[in-house]
Amino acid sequence: MATKPAPRVVKVAAAQLGPNQKAVSRASILDRMLKLMDEAAAQGVKILAYPELALTTFFPVHYLADEDEIASYFEPTSAADPYAVLSSPHAKPLVDKANALGIDFYIGFAERWTGEDGKTTDYNTCIYYSVAAKNGVGKYRKVHLPGTKEPLPNPKAFQQLEKKYFTPGDLGFPAFRAPGLIDGALKAEDVGQEANSVAKGDPIMGMLICNDRRWPEAWRPYGLQGAELVIEGYNTTAWAPQYDGTPEEQQKLAEFHHRLSCQAGSYQNALWSINVAKCGIENEQGLIAGSMIIDPLGRVVAESKTMDDELIVATIDLSMCQSQRGRVFNFEKHRRLEHYGMILDQVGLQEIPLLSRAS
Amino acid sequence: MATKPAPRVVKVAAAQLGPNQKAVSRASILDRMLKLMDEAAAQGVKILAYPELALTTFFPVHYLADEDEIASYFEPTSAADPYAVLSSPHAKPLVDKANALGIDFYIGFAERWTGEDGKTTDYNTCIYYSVAAKNGVGKYRKVHLPGTKEPLPNPKAFQQLEKKYFTPGDLGFPAFRAPGLIDGALKAEDVGQEANSVAKGDPIMGMLICNDRRWPEAWRPYGLQGAELVIEGYNTTAWAPQYDGTPEEQQKLAEFHHRLSCQAGSYQNALWSINVAKCGIENEQGLIAGSMIIDPLGRVVAESKTMDDELIVATIDLSMCQSQRGRVFNFEKHRRLEHYGMILDQVGLQEIPLLSRAS
Repeated sequence: MATKPAPRVVKVAAAQLGPNQKAVSRASILDRMLKLMDEAAAQGVKILAYPELALTTFFPVHYLADEDEIASYFEPTSAADPYAVLSSPHAKPLVDKANALGIDFYIGFAERWTGEDGKTTDYNTCIYYSVAAKNGVGKYRKVHLPGTKEPLPNPKAFQQLEKKYFTPGDLGFPAFRAPGLIDGALKAEDVGQEANSVAKGDPIMGMLICNDRRWPEAWRPYGLQGAELVIEGYNTTAWAPQYDGTPEEQQKLAEFHHRLSCQAGSYQNALWSINVAKCGIENEQGLIAGSMIIDPLGRVVAESKTMDDELIVATIDLSMCQSQRGRVFNFEKHRRLEHYGMILDQVGLQEIPLLSRAS
Repeated sequence: MATKPAPRVVKVAAAQLGPNQKAVSRASILDRMLKLMDEAAAQGVKILAYPELALTTFFPVHYLADEDEIASYFEPTSAADPYAVLSSPHAKPLVDKANALGIDFYIGFAERWTGEDGKTTDYNTCIYYSVAAKNGVGKYRKVHLPGTKEPLPNPKAFQQLEKKYFTPGDLGFPAFRAPGLIDGALKAEDVGQEANSVAKGDPIMGMLICNDRRWPEAWRPYGLQGAELVIEGYNTTAWAPQYDGTPEEQQKLAEFHHRLSCQAGSYQNALWSINVAKCGIENEQGLIAGSMIIDPLGRVVAESKTMDDELIVATIDLSMCQSQRGRVFNFEKHRRLEHYGMILDQVGLQEIPLLSRAS
């Protein structure tokens, strides 16, 4: 029997948010977020996760024609300052409090990026703010944008227009290390002495946003990079007039698919995940709750109970990832790349011909 | 709202098997299997699934040195007759009854293959027998072999030696069409007139074996080929002395992981699956049950209740796959190959360097 790896313990939390109605002020949203950070600090939390598009209402469910209104939901960033959102008045109070309390945080927001050529591109983005680094140390742009580019013609239809408002993420699935969280972790100056020493460095983190969690192709790159914790914020529609079933049935199904996807992603990649909702009835549209912290065996260890602002907390041991990685999910021993080619060879479904028999 | 696709209905069943003790005769195992086929016919079943290595005991959990004993568990096949197992006395009675009753079946067995060069290779294999074709129309060899090549030194350890007894499958994940099941399905002679007409032809099928179900890379190729039904047989250890927890805790966890993997594979690829166990206490080793039929939304529609021989039946509509494929899992619209490269670029975990920050 293998000896247990040394524990790598950190206290984490999901800051589930209730609805951000269109009519309310940005300041009042920020106040609720700050209050949850205070609660987290009181419990000794070191990593706090806010949802996708946490600073505003979930505007992609509306067809908006007014460019000024659209712009009001975005935070500017640029090649010169990729984490500019952290100095925006819409987020700076979070940074100040995080520094005062010693809490790292993940936050989702709409990003209007100005590249080196001066052109702007809009993304559905999240960043990880590190107190030890006094800056963002991780950025991710949503790869799997759901919905359509054009609004559905049916006037009663529920709209999901992320493909209209955002460009698919261009950063891939970049894992990163978050400093200052684990006592005795190897540091930058140790590089070269004990580089890549398995799970002795700072925690390896990954980030996803909402619909990404349904795609195994989004989780696997983090597993392959050794991520120990993936954070994922979401706004997930509970029902829509064009779907089958009563609103209650639809909501139950949406919750089931959310849970199934997050548990499978964690289990199959042997990593912790924090999954955090914006939820409740927002601008008359229901969003599911179900924020949860999941262990590397796919088990839910903490789960929200309300459809409103709520903190869920867990003390997690990152070293748990290592046991699974030595056994069932030892990728090196068990993965067979020679048979996975189709995953990269074709984008869409290519139904096999009518006359197809194996030899 | 899209109009509903035309129904494609077929009645299917899982023939869960209780333990096949080492000491019992092959004939007595076959008798139990034939009895389950009779039960299935009485209920109008058209597709019946037997487990992995259904014809014998689950020998890979034993370290065997006697080559004759090992050979006794295998069925010979060859390049000249890839489905030779069907004429073996160990399986022919199943074929005869299947023809008499009009039931296709999936069955797992240990395959000793003689290639064109006369060399033999051993695989953990399954085939799909089609009554309409009067032959096998699909063959799959297990890609993800669990366990180790060498026995574990700890004399109390539970052994899992599939890597010793078998070579990883060399056929990839080949979908195929099963003829004669759907009234009015386009046939071979229609090829060229309406080739690849979505879901108007014979059902598109895929096959997996046991540990494959934990790997999203195994399900996705079937989803990409338009598979509507994946069949998967398994022998899954309920507990082992070298694992954490009481036998009861371990069994509960093993059942949870089984369920999670099968439900996620079905949901994320929008297809039906039949998952069928050999189970119970076999040669003092516990195997989980939990045979289940799962719909393209990931929901369990039928599930075994015992740890013994048991038939579970469901009438399934293959056209259900099409709704999900037009929406959440429209691969063409949502998959982003440019970010999936790592899945094919590296086999194993490559932990990122100690100093890794995103830009």
